[in-house]
Amino acid sequence: MQLLEALNWRYATKKMNGLPVPQEKVDKILDATQLAPTSSGLQPFKILVITNPELKAKIQPIAFNQSQIVDGSHLLVFAAWDNYTEKRIDDVFAHTAIERGIPISTFDDYCNRLKGMYLSRPAEKNFEHAARQVYIAFGLAIAAAAELQVDATPMEGFDNAALDELLQLPQQGLKSVTLLPLGYRDVENDWLVKQKKVRMPKSEFFQQIA
Amino acid sequence: MQLLEALNWRYATKKMNGLPVPQEKVDKILDATQLAPTSSGLQPFKILVITNPELKAKIQPIAFNQSQIVDGSHLLVFAAWDNYTEKRIDDVFAHTAIERGIPISTFDDYCNRLKGMYLSRPAEKNFEHAARQVYIAFGLAIAAAAELQVDATPMEGFDNAALDELLQLPQQGLKSVTLLPLGYRDVENDWLVKQKKVRMPKSEFFQQIA
Repeated sequence: MQLLEALNWRYATKKMNGLPVPQEKVDKILDATQLAPTSSGLQPFKILVITNPELKAKIQPIAFNQSQIVDGSHLLVFAAWDNYTEKRIDDVFAHTAIERGIPISTFDDYCNRLKGMYLSRPAEKNFEHAARQVYIAFGLAIAAAAELQVDATPMEGFDNAALDELLQLPQQGLKSVTLLPLGYRDVENDWLVKQKKVRMPKSEFFQQIA
Repeated sequence: MQLLEALNWRYATKKMNGLPVPQEKVDKILDATQLAPTSSGLQPFKILVITNPELKAKIQPIAFNQSQIVDGSHLLVFAAWDNYTEKRIDDVFAHTAIERGIPISTFDDYCNRLKGMYLSRPAEKNFEHAARQVYIAFGLAIAAAAELQVDATPMEGFDNAALDELLQLPQQGLKSVTLLPLGYRDVENDWLVKQKKVRMPKSEFFQQIA
């Protein structure tokens, strides 16, 4: 099974060798994120694809100086909507109606229920819900990269506020959630590459109720 | 690329036909969740695998009476740690040290940094962080199911407190996050199966900074 092989092959690469990932592979990784399922299909996030070396160099100190930020050829920044708004919800369902060739009124009831639920909640709660959706796409990007034998390092450890400011995310109604540098492992210099992959035993991780 | 094919094949199945998913396929789906990357490798969640028909029938009304809960043969309940604790963190690194045959003290600095960060935060913030990790495994389970041509319905819409009580999750230090019934689409009776899969256009979803 290809997914399991890919997940066994991958690891959180600590040192990359600087070789560039071909754009067609990056495009497939991005396709996987676009296909990720999200709550009510809202896709409440954006992905910034950064190849600019100066910008990556500015991001590195914001992310504990992790070398993969600059040694990966592409840096994906996953940024979630800072809130759900009427316009954002309407835009998604208007697009869906057009694509399916059906009247937008088809979604009226569903849309109103969503708005009733989301628009009265604090922005922070809505952002948190949007951020959770990011992690689905984030995981699928990691899996897609691995299937293409592209290395990736999932990162949560960075100064979110500083990155948001640098990338002018608040102006777009976005807040950074995770980073994913894409590149290739430096087999000689990565201390983690030869370590055994360890997971908690199935007996602790799963619970069968038959 | 198999992952993209799988993601294009899948959809949030609204009606399942009641046929059982073979256990060896379920096991592979669970393998994918176990291999999911998580923050610091803590795997801060458990997955309950429910096949008991009476229990599924009790869960259905808690989840807006969605029929997939009972028409799917296996119901996965993703439940996150309600908090990070010293013991939970220690247990993970003790296990890793044993598996890698290295002294546990190797992880002292890293562990202390984690504890410094997590143990002083409110439980709610730690749960939210653990819940985000759930979504990585949740997404990979959906992808793994699709690769095996098993249908799945990602669900967030249910009464978390009622489900937690029914499954006695608080006693285990867990809180439910998502549900994933596994089964097979009822092609005749599922209104969604023939609808076009729609995603927001790449021009809105991605932002290139070269």
